[in-house]
Amino acid sequence: MSRFLNKRYAALEAYTPGEQPRDMVYIKLNTNESPYPPAPAVVAAMNSEQVENLRLYSDPTGLSLKQKLAGLYDLQVENIFISNGSDDILNFAFMAFADERGAAFADITYGFYPVYGQLHNVNVQIIPLEEDFSLDYKKYCGLNKMIVIANPNAPTGMEIPLWQIEEILKSNPDSVVVIDEAYVDFGGTSCYKLIKNYVNLLVVRTFSKSRCLAGARLGYAFGSKELIEDLEKLKYSTNPYNVNRLTMMLGCQTIDAEPYYQEVSQKIQSARTWSVEALEALGFRVLPSKANFIFASHPAISGDALYAGLRQRGILVRHFTKPRIRDFVRITIGTQAQMERLAEALKEMTGGTK
Amino acid sequence: MSRFLNKRYAALEAYTPGEQPRDMVYIKLNTNESPYPPAPAVVAAMNSEQVENLRLYSDPTGLSLKQKLAGLYDLQVENIFISNGSDDILNFAFMAFADERGAAFADITYGFYPVYGQLHNVNVQIIPLEEDFSLDYKKYCGLNKMIVIANPNAPTGMEIPLWQIEEILKSNPDSVVVIDEAYVDFGGTSCYKLIKNYVNLLVVRTFSKSRCLAGARLGYAFGSKELIEDLEKLKYSTNPYNVNRLTMMLGCQTIDAEPYYQEVSQKIQSARTWSVEALEALGFRVLPSKANFIFASHPAISGDALYAGLRQRGILVRHFTKPRIRDFVRITIGTQAQMERLAEALKEMTGGTK
Repeated sequence: MSRFLNKRYAALEAYTPGEQPRDMVYIKLNTNESPYPPAPAVVAAMNSEQVENLRLYSDPTGLSLKQKLAGLYDLQVENIFISNGSDDILNFAFMAFADERGAAFADITYGFYPVYGQLHNVNVQIIPLEEDFSLDYKKYCGLNKMIVIANPNAPTGMEIPLWQIEEILKSNPDSVVVIDEAYVDFGGTSCYKLIKNYVNLLVVRTFSKSRCLAGARLGYAFGSKELIEDLEKLKYSTNPYNVNRLTMMLGCQTIDAEPYYQEVSQKIQSARTWSVEALEALGFRVLPSKANFIFASHPAISGDALYAGLRQRGILVRHFTKPRIRDFVRITIGTQAQMERLAEALKEMTGGTK
Repeated sequence: MSRFLNKRYAALEAYTPGEQPRDMVYIKLNTNESPYPPAPAVVAAMNSEQVENLRLYSDPTGLSLKQKLAGLYDLQVENIFISNGSDDILNFAFMAFADERGAAFADITYGFYPVYGQLHNVNVQIIPLEEDFSLDYKKYCGLNKMIVIANPNAPTGMEIPLWQIEEILKSNPDSVVVIDEAYVDFGGTSCYKLIKNYVNLLVVRTFSKSRCLAGARLGYAFGSKELIEDLEKLKYSTNPYNVNRLTMMLGCQTIDAEPYYQEVSQKIQSARTWSVEALEALGFRVLPSKANFIFASHPAISGDALYAGLRQRGILVRHFTKPRIRDFVRITIGTQAQMERLAEALKEMTGGTK
């Protein structure tokens, strides 16, 4: 850091994104991107006129996209927030709703939550997951502070049922409960309909995973009119035009192509089922995943070695160094063919039997 | 605001972007967008494969674009920061460099600076411009706090010379001086080469105006390695992938098409010269502008009436309600044809003579 940096950020440790190596072409199973491109109609919607119109700002209200989302999810425009990816929304949520009472989240969850906590000087309560990496909802009841739960969780892929989220909402009526549903579209159960009953619920979602648009930067959130207004206020106080004009258009096209994305989700889920079986046959422990990734460990090979061995074989996965999970790797679900390549590589590394 | 919003934002007044009306097609001279599309080679660079690859995240380091910018401006990659528009960078700069000593900027300048000040709880010193809207650099010497100067200034279009910036830098060695050069490419003088001599200089720029990419969301900054590292740290603690993948590609193509943008800048400057003469012939006072807009008032018509009269005639300009400038309107320089339409409308409104 420079001597000019505000001292309050002296201890800040930034988030580490998954690596984007340039040395060779890998099978990239490390950042939970989709192996499938956007729908053909989405790709076809791009034309010269769209690019020429980049000379103009995008509509900062995002109205056209909000209307599409409102139609698909049967919500009102006033219940929808749009921003530059779900990270952007999570950042705003920590700014807006983590007051002097602080915020609570799990020890093993999306690694960006503690960064936002540090960034905004939030008093953070870390609640360890159970031994089996499940989340005990009772530990979140009555906390009276902002709660953030990724559901399904990352990097475990595990989810908690709707009724438990409802209990958490009921028992924390004076603080916001953020449910991060970045990975919900791969067989998980969304809680978004609960926003009609709970003014303190904010559901954060993204076009990056199930909508195959990681590089387009588009996140959205559902919540009560009041919560959405708060987020808009922060957005209009930092970067009102933060969503790219082309992205806004592609987002609208994406909603119109919903059946394609349902199909993509089915393919990912089939490949996930196949992968879990293949890894278990090789002796791996695989946590029960509802996401587009699996979290796996092997009794005889360290997480480090799994990561390095796969990298050597041209396959990138994500490895975290946190003690509780350092023997796991997070593997994004790619195409069936990619997962077969992965299984072959792992077979080679493990000796091929349990 | 909701009862959940952190009380520290209770008094926050968000920025008001220029209007984006949908009721009819206007000649849009209100948000300083370019009337010209991106270069033909930039438009042609977009293809299906680029859109398909949106399934992947963009490179969070922005290396390819940094290399292009380093080439064009003869700088090192380590001196360059890239983010989601220059607003995004200004926000980071206020976070990073406006510490307990506070920040100083003019009373009449980019309206977002006070918003960032409020957002980050910064002690703000407002320094009034002189009677003629010029900026007296001596008032910024030895302040020992973060200084932000738009050069050319908005909405006046007026600039201060390089040597005055250098005096400000020299006399504030322990705080960061941010020079916002959003509008520098229309005949202004950039101070960016001073980053080699002053570690406390941050030059903030954008592809939105002279590079005809307002809707693409691409800002960049030049500064010492240390300052850039600080900004990277904040970016990696909020939203590392914040630049769209297509935008990164279009930005690289834009740098390769530099001669086109020089030509566009010349056309804007010619239309500006013509417009100033036309307005002065109608009795307007027009401040001396180096930007892609002019700031003008008329002795017989209020700013409100100018704005409303033009809107009625299908031309949008920007009107600010601040007492000192409420009799002015800010008029973006469009094509020559658009400026002729503007002059006709103003002739009608003013009666056509001095």
